[in-house]
Amino acid sequence: MGGGSSGRGSAVVWLASALLLLFTSPAYGGPEKPRMSAQTRACIGCHSIYTPGIVYDWRSGRHSRTTPEEALKSPVLQRRVSAKSIPEDLSRYVVGCYECHSRNPEKHKDNFDHMGFRINVIVTPEDCKTCHPVEVKEYAGSKKALAIGNLLDNPVYHTLVDSVTGLKRIKDGEITSEKPSEKTLQETCLGCHGTKIEVRGLKKVSTEMGEIMVPDLTNWPNQGVGRQNPDGSLGACTSCHPRHGFSIEVARKPYTCAQCHLEPDTPAWNVYKESKHGNIYLSASSKWRFDAVPWTVGKDFTAPTCAVCHSSLLVSPEGRVIAQRTHDFGSRLWVRLFGLIYSHPQPRSGDTTIIKNKDGLPLPTTFTGEYASEYLIDEAEQEERLKSMKAICNACHSSDWTNGHFGKLENTIRETNEMTLAATELMLQAWQRGIEDRTNPFDEPLEKMWIKQWLFYSNSIRYASAMTGAPDYAAFKLGWWELAENLQRMKDMIELKSRCTGASPDR
Amino acid sequence: MGGGSSGRGSAVVWLASALLLLFTSPAYGGPEKPRMSAQTRACIGCHSIYTPGIVYDWRSGRHSRTTPEEALKSPVLQRRVSAKSIPEDLSRYVVGCYECHSRNPEKHKDNFDHMGFRINVIVTPEDCKTCHPVEVKEYAGSKKALAIGNLLDNPVYHTLVDSVTGLKRIKDGEITSEKPSEKTLQETCLGCHGTKIEVRGLKKVSTEMGEIMVPDLTNWPNQGVGRQNPDGSLGACTSCHPRHGFSIEVARKPYTCAQCHLEPDTPAWNVYKESKHGNIYLSASSKWRFDAVPWTVGKDFTAPTCAVCHSSLLVSPEGRVIAQRTHDFGSRLWVRLFGLIYSHPQPRSGDTTIIKNKDGLPLPTTFTGEYASEYLIDEAEQEERLKSMKAICNACHSSDWTNGHFGKLENTIRETNEMTLAATELMLQAWQRGIEDRTNPFDEPLEKMWIKQWLFYSNSIRYASAMTGAPDYAAFKLGWWELAENLQRMKDMIELKSRCTGASPDR
Amino acid sequence: MGGGSSGRGSAVVWLASALLLLFTSPAYGGPEKPRMSAQTRACIGCHSIYTPGIVYDWRSGRHSRTTPEEALKSPVLQRRVSAKSIPEDLSRYVVGCYECHSRNPEKHKDNFDHMGFRINVIVTPEDCKTCHPVEVKEYAGSKKALAIGNLLDNPVYHTLVDSVTGLKRIKDGEITSEKPSEKTLQETCLGCHGTKIEVRGLKKVSTEMGEIMVPDLTNWPNQGVGRQNPDGSLGACTSCHPRHGFSIEVARKPYTCAQCHLEPDTPAWNVYKESKHGNIYLSASSKWRFDAVPWTVGKDFTAPTCAVCHSSLLVSPEGRVIAQRTHDFGSRLWVRLFGLIYSHPQPRSGDTTIIKNKDGLPLPTTFTGEYASEYLIDEAEQEERLKSMKAICNACHSSDWTNGHFGKLENTIRETNEMTLAATELMLQAWQRGIEDRTNPFDEPLEKMWIKQWLFYSNSIRYASAMTGAPDYAAFKLGWWELAENLQRMKDMIELKSRCTGASPDR
Repeated sequence: MGGGSSGRGSAVVWLASALLLLFTSPAYGGPEKPRMSAQTRACIGCHSIYTPGIVYDWRSGRHSRTTPEEALKSPVLQRRVSAKSIPEDLSRYVVGCYECHSRNPEKHKDNFDHMGFRINVIVTPEDCKTCHPVEVKEYAGSKKALAIGNLLDNPVYHTLVDSVTGLKRIKDGEITSEKPSEKTLQETCLGCHGTKIEVRGLKKVSTEMGEIMVPDLTNWPNQGVGRQNPDGSLGACTSCHPRHGFSIEVARKPYTCAQCHLEPDTPAWNVYKESKHGNIYLSASSKWRFDAVPWTVGKDFTAPTCAVCHSSLLVSPEGRVIAQRTHDFGSRLWVRLFGLIYSHPQPRSGDTTIIKNKDGLPLPTTFTGEYASEYLIDEAEQEERLKSMKAICNACHSSDWTNGHFGKLENTIRETNEMTLAATELMLQAWQRGIEDRTNPFDEPLEKMWIKQWLFYSNSIRYASAMTGAPDYAAFKLGWWELAENLQRMKDMIELKSRCTGASPDR
Repeated sequence: MGGGSSGRGSAVVWLASALLLLFTSPAYGGPEKPRMSAQTRACIGCHSIYTPGIVYDWRSGRHSRTTPEEALKSPVLQRRVSAKSIPEDLSRYVVGCYECHSRNPEKHKDNFDHMGFRINVIVTPEDCKTCHPVEVKEYAGSKKALAIGNLLDNPVYHTLVDSVTGLKRIKDGEITSEKPSEKTLQETCLGCHGTKIEVRGLKKVSTEMGEIMVPDLTNWPNQGVGRQNPDGSLGACTSCHPRHGFSIEVARKPYTCAQCHLEPDTPAWNVYKESKHGNIYLSASSKWRFDAVPWTVGKDFTAPTCAVCHSSLLVSPEGRVIAQRTHDFGSRLWVRLFGLIYSHPQPRSGDTTIIKNKDGLPLPTTFTGEYASEYLIDEAEQEERLKSMKAICNACHSSDWTNGHFGKLENTIRETNEMTLAATELMLQAWQRGIEDRTNPFDEPLEKMWIKQWLFYSNSIRYASAMTGAPDYAAFKLGWWELAENLQRMKDMIELKSRCTGASPDR
Repeated sequence: MGGGSSGRGSAVVWLASALLLLFTSPAYGGPEKPRMSAQTRACIGCHSIYTPGIVYDWRSGRHSRTTPEEALKSPVLQRRVSAKSIPEDLSRYVVGCYECHSRNPEKHKDNFDHMGFRINVIVTPEDCKTCHPVEVKEYAGSKKALAIGNLLDNPVYHTLVDSVTGLKRIKDGEITSEKPSEKTLQETCLGCHGTKIEVRGLKKVSTEMGEIMVPDLTNWPNQGVGRQNPDGSLGACTSCHPRHGFSIEVARKPYTCAQCHLEPDTPAWNVYKESKHGNIYLSASSKWRFDAVPWTVGKDFTAPTCAVCHSSLLVSPEGRVIAQRTHDFGSRLWVRLFGLIYSHPQPRSGDTTIIKNKDGLPLPTTFTGEYASEYLIDEAEQEERLKSMKAICNACHSSDWTNGHFGKLENTIRETNEMTLAATELMLQAWQRGIEDRTNPFDEPLEKMWIKQWLFYSNSIRYASAMTGAPDYAAFKLGWWELAENLQRMKDMIELKSRCTGASPDR
């Protein structure tokens, strides 16, 4: 096994040499190359032939131009590395293939021998931590890092996942549902939440270089935010910092968040682009500076993007810090707009599986809307976080404007929670009358209508309200119109079924 | 009250002085600064600390670089001000904070004492009129300026608004609907249409400078097109010219119109981006000049945007005027695509509350499609407007092409009106049989299906047809597919309910 | 007839002369003008007055700056013309109005006398073939070129077209459906598929120059991909290369494909923009080079667009060809994701009307999913095409990554086909019980629900899976959620109708 590659060995060496010549020539920008480690040069020797896209993408990025030693010399606010010091063996080379793909080999079950080097297939937060420890630590405690468990280890959500993505067949005229396949989960829920990558051993793959041995990974490829990596770490920095340019510009653009935060369940991007801020972003951002660190309000950008409000280090033109950088994207949030089934204060812990409501269900609210308060942040903490968010708004808006905005959001949360309650009362009625069966609360027609009330429509209205706009969205697209029509239809179907099937009108 | 700010007075003065130094230093672009009025300098002294975003946004715009005196020297076609003369006290200063926020204090109920200056919170069209009287006058007579009354003072539309956005609760197993809250109206219908801003007095707000007194405004913030302002004027120029850059580039980009003109009711942007013109805009507009006045066909842009057809001053490369600028965005339109409930000729007046159809309802057509002709423009006027629109098309297209296009639109209007009639006939049948109750024609399941026929699907098909494309949209997305399926479902539900409930088949 | 124009003759001549002066002046870029043919100069003389938009658009493009003779001198990989030689009379002039609009007059039924020149209204692939024969030949055999017949000459699809776009009326309380009007077909299905353009003779049109005679064309204007042209040729190059810049940049941007490949039936663009590749495109493509030929992976672009995978000539930075250019956009595809009604191997021929399944229907699969294999490419050919696609992926990704990706796609196809089968079994049940009538399988409520399963939801999931992402789309937006809910609703409606109408439960 693996011998297939040896036959091409000499050709590879020849090509690698040729490429090295190319890459160290002045035309290619040669003067900088001496700072590339010998190992990375070897990687690039072959990979610029076999996977040139990623090599050139890397070359476009800061990693290929900066050594950690240089990075550490920047003033603190401008610094893109958060480590206080960097291991000696890394600090004088640019951050190349080998520097990242060879970290912590003892932890990496996906470490393998590749052309004479010990290489990890997957670079994980644990590896990025070498230079970016603060970001990794913040992220590690967030709901995002724990996104797989938060979904699949919660029996209620797991049932919903199964009801939606499980393969259905007709048997004897009835619909049967199977457990979702791993691959379909990867293409749906776990595409965003992340998959568990395990190493089953080695396997042979055919490549342009011949057959080579590589680790046999489960549920791969995947770049979900809570990916469980072969070194035991959680998360994929590449969810938002796509390989191999790792451009801060990309991470700061809303399209990155818009890989997952989308209608109908979490339409952050959909409502943002219809808002005033989205209008300004779409119309004027070609003149903004997306790569400035720190990010200066008014000078580098003139309207917020996702990153402005939820993550970036912001300063005023005279250098005052308006918001500290965070990679726990919920840490500036006081309320969780996302209804489960009601909007509620943010959970205390990024691990939401520990939550139990008064009915004993692993949900932050009861079906009638009571909070599982001991698992949620208290009012003082909510106030503190709201204040930190308002500080960002106030970089452009008067306090009165900002207060007015959040007053509207508060009302929206209250009213959409009420609308969820109304739908839930109809649902309880239908379960009580035996029109549908509560055992699995997510798999019958009325139940699906009920889910849409809180998962699609109420959430959409809240997102629109939070993002200063999208009034047409909140009115007609996926908002009040749907809430009202769907509620009416639920009522109508209950009546029709009660009449046609003789279910008892026990109200 | 308000004393909270005095404690910080000296710090403010100090900071303001420091900022003035900064702003008049050469690095900041000092040579131009002498033209800033003393009052505006004072504003900026503090606001570049407290709300730097808007100060820097303003600095990016033309207002910060041009005095009215200079603006008046431009050749007429290039001029961005329409006033023949500008008051002496304004003409030699750039258009800064104080110049706009201090106009007409006697009319402004939102005028208040702010750090020693009399300031209006809201700058209104009446204020902008100082330099832009023609635009303000055009706008004042348009449907947009009257958008609040046109919606809420029309009892039919008001009922629809209430049915959609009113909070619903379940009482004794029945759905009850409340009047919509002010805040929900602000986040939905009135987000686009505008709110009525009244001054309830003064109130204390906490700011970074301490507590200050500010006017206590109702329904604020809002930037809807028909906003009723505290000086009695109508409209918000900031709907399309976002503060404080007031960039013509932003106003001319379709994202601005796309804050409100969206699916499912008015999907102008949605169909535009799928059209050939939208394709060219999205693919090539990074090379266009969006800030040129006048706007030259072929040189400054190579495909129309919303502004091209509906608003901008267009010239040919040799300087011939192809279309005069207008801020009455309906003035180039002969037909109103938006079905109420049928598409119909544009109304004569921007105030549509005066319309009465033959059935006595405040609608431009009867339920069977007859026009309330005396309130609509006549054929000669329609012809005139169509001609002015064709002149724009003909800057790129042959007359035959243009005629062919509008021939298709005419057919689309006729057929979608027919489809609305078919749905209305089913609805009348259902009302007659007592399946639903006509008292409120907008709140029951069949009624909602009927509304979607004319408000969502028919409108969408017309918009797609008007915008030279979006064939997949008109076929499947929100068009003929939906029209056909929904009509069939209406029929089906009527039959099912007739059978299950014993409603009399009285046709 | 036509005399109306003579009255303006002298004015036209005067203006044309003036324009010629302008266009040959140094300020306009005069030095290049001698290479414009005399006829094209005459065209431009008038058209820069009457339709300046297209004249300036043309001037922005390569056609206006390059002669075929020069184009032929480029190295082969950089060449944008595929002809080995170009007729002598064309080779030394830039490619202007007359060069294209005067080709093959004997074949063009739309050829007419226009201001003393014999002009074709429509430039067709047969005309473009003069310089681009390879592209035209590839295209001519593709499904796109045959898109009208493939839709309308297939009785099954034609029935679907009629059911969707036919005008409905209520007669005696029943819904009646007419044949769709030509104009509505143009605005829907044939907007993308193309119309048949015939010449009915000449007609008079009013223009700014007075009345002139022009060919009277049917179904015009249209730029659908399979347009049947008055010279007998098929296709419209302008579908993707909009007039008159004919920019390769536009053709390579996904917005061009996104004129037609859209949700809900073929949501290629919709899922692309939510994918990782779409994220990188939207965030970073302002720095890409869209006009480079050949197109270099990693240097000119760092993520694929539609054109990268389906059409463009791709090379690696050292010049190795990764993919040959093709204008048969299906030629790199092994599977047809688009379910008819199941996803299946690509058809052998671009003419799909010849296909017959085992049930004698003109469909590539039976209703139970069996392939009409003799009309579809065999496994060896599938393997070959998959390999060519993988070569593109592997320009950035490891073989294992790429295999993992296509493994997921394969699973998606299998499961969505199963879900289509489940819906079809319910449909067969309903037809059997007489709940709906199979004569027209596309016009009743349950039938429409069934159609959505395979035409909207299954397709959407497959597109999302093929495009490496859009997990939220595949889960909730138009994917598994809808598949599951709609299937459940079909079942529910069958039961309800069985009970209410007494249809026999004959399962």
